[in-house]
Amino acid sequence: MWNQTAVSELLKIDYPILQAGMAGGPAGARLAASVSEAGGLGTLGAGYMKPGEIREAVREIRRLTDKPFAVNLFIPEPYEEEDGTMERARRLLQPYCRELGLAGEGPAAPKPYAEPFEEQAQVLLEEKVPVFSFTFGVPSADWIDAFKKEGILLIGTATTVAEGAHLESEGIDLVVGQGSEAGGHRGTFLGGHEQALVGTMALIPQLADTLHVPVIAAGGIMDGRGIAASLLLGASGVQLGTAFLASPESGAHPRYKEAVLQSMEESTVVTRAFSGKAARGIRNRFVVEMEQAEATLPPYPVQNALTRELRREAARQERIEFMSLWAGQGSRLATDVPAGVRVRELAAQTEEAFRRMHF
Amino acid sequence: MWNQTAVSELLKIDYPILQAGMAGGPAGARLAASVSEAGGLGTLGAGYMKPGEIREAVREIRRLTDKPFAVNLFIPEPYEEEDGTMERARRLLQPYCRELGLAGEGPAAPKPYAEPFEEQAQVLLEEKVPVFSFTFGVPSADWIDAFKKEGILLIGTATTVAEGAHLESEGIDLVVGQGSEAGGHRGTFLGGHEQALVGTMALIPQLADTLHVPVIAAGGIMDGRGIAASLLLGASGVQLGTAFLASPESGAHPRYKEAVLQSMEESTVVTRAFSGKAARGIRNRFVVEMEQAEATLPPYPVQNALTRELRREAARQERIEFMSLWAGQGSRLATDVPAGVRVRELAAQTEEAFRRMHF
Repeated sequence: MWNQTAVSELLKIDYPILQAGMAGGPAGARLAASVSEAGGLGTLGAGYMKPGEIREAVREIRRLTDKPFAVNLFIPEPYEEEDGTMERARRLLQPYCRELGLAGEGPAAPKPYAEPFEEQAQVLLEEKVPVFSFTFGVPSADWIDAFKKEGILLIGTATTVAEGAHLESEGIDLVVGQGSEAGGHRGTFLGGHEQALVGTMALIPQLADTLHVPVIAAGGIMDGRGIAASLLLGASGVQLGTAFLASPESGAHPRYKEAVLQSMEESTVVTRAFSGKAARGIRNRFVVEMEQAEATLPPYPVQNALTRELRREAARQERIEFMSLWAGQGSRLATDVPAGVRVRELAAQTEEAFRRMHF
Repeated sequence: MWNQTAVSELLKIDYPILQAGMAGGPAGARLAASVSEAGGLGTLGAGYMKPGEIREAVREIRRLTDKPFAVNLFIPEPYEEEDGTMERARRLLQPYCRELGLAGEGPAAPKPYAEPFEEQAQVLLEEKVPVFSFTFGVPSADWIDAFKKEGILLIGTATTVAEGAHLESEGIDLVVGQGSEAGGHRGTFLGGHEQALVGTMALIPQLADTLHVPVIAAGGIMDGRGIAASLLLGASGVQLGTAFLASPESGAHPRYKEAVLQSMEESTVVTRAFSGKAARGIRNRFVVEMEQAEATLPPYPVQNALTRELRREAARQERIEFMSLWAGQGSRLATDVPAGVRVRELAAQTEEAFRRMHF
């Protein structure tokens, strides 16, 4: 059977279909549980969540399903706060804050800029989550050991063959190959993100040729055709984000879901405007107007902290021109069917795609 | 059989495998004839050739094979010569000309900047070539009629769904969907090329859903895995360039072939530096040093004419740092086996890829 791959066997799931850990709302407990319950691997996108929120969400998933699931976190990277960068960014953002009616002195970035990884990871250990997936780097050897001692499977994210090989050498169990089509943040952690914008069609065979651990294809995969194609390219599984983004179980803002459902293949762009880290999303007014200044913006997580209030207020006022609308280049093929139904549809479509090619 | 698709039937070829019309040397008569003779569709990359050279090459192909083949041309686009742009570009190029020992006054751009399309196309009509493929736009209705009257099949190039739909509405018989992984010039002709850098995995299903004419996948396809994946995505055929670039029959410079064989997935970049039109190639010194000035360079074909002498002299001196090394993101998988052998290998690999997934 097409679905009996190294990925489905290792993760103990019916179909080697992972739901991406879309942080910041879309991939909450409800979406993760629905995908897992239907036979895929649901993922809690916990990158921006406080440790206590993660614990609560993990317990919620377990109330909803007894199937395996993953929790996704961001690996912290060193960053520099250059003199003046923060002030320049604040001046750039001030007019938007004013337009949204946010009081006074413009955007602030209260510390810490991001939730502390160690405290987040500690919750995963304590709750003994089945799978820990991550992006933006590799956990330290100590953390990897700690997870392995608890029997927690580790999934890393690579945008190049070199990153995949590095993850494997650190003992990571499975590697997601994130093609340039993928929505959301680029997982690149070795070298610049521009060089690492490699299309899924080119990336997956090169990763599969080099790695010994199973490769999971991500980027532009939206239906059974993409899943079947990915398996033929050498992947043992797939990870889909945008395909689940507009489902009722997704926590994405209703206007965000509408924008995804109305988008097309030319709608997205890779931008640093919202978070300071390159990410693919639907081009809106904020992205366009910040384009000129992109190179001078502070790095993640500084810029992310600076725009947080603005994004929150924009969501409250339903002003999609200031919201981060992460989506991949396949977004035209997104649907609003329930996530569990979608998983079963994807499995049936994949089987059908293979059946059509039989001879 | 996997190879009996709308593309192989329409083109009367054994395998729906097209060799891309890599202009400027690689795709000469010898490569085209070898690919066609082996059961694929070879293509003469005639974009930069004079009408007389095209006629000679077409006759050479016919001496070497009686199988169908294609000739590829560039559709001329309107362009503007802004005041000062040419002078600025000449000043930028002068140091490189000096470094290569080119005499005197720096780069010149003798008119016409490009070979006249009408005279090139007239040769194709007179020689009644089996297939005319093109990029950068659509021929006028008169030209399309003239080709159709001679029974010449037409293949256009699309980088977006809108471009594909436009080609179809103009009566084009088959549409190549050029994913962002593809090497060489971007075929984009509606809107900016940045928005039209859509990965093959995302582009092909969206094109296949919209078009009624057969879709040919291009971009990052290097072996049977990529061919099988493309057919599952909804394509009825594939077009490969980089996979044939280092073959003995390819007219690419020996140093260029070496560079391709030593490259990896992060080696390439989309640049306007050489021709004024966005194209993917291996990042070398010229590309890196021109990066800052890219936005100010004259458009194609002006910049192409300005750098012609420099590129020619660099090739003569084997200075790959100044040569245009067009290649796709799958270039790591390129081989130097003969093109005909490669076509048969690709067919066998494709069959094998499908067979592995049988259940």
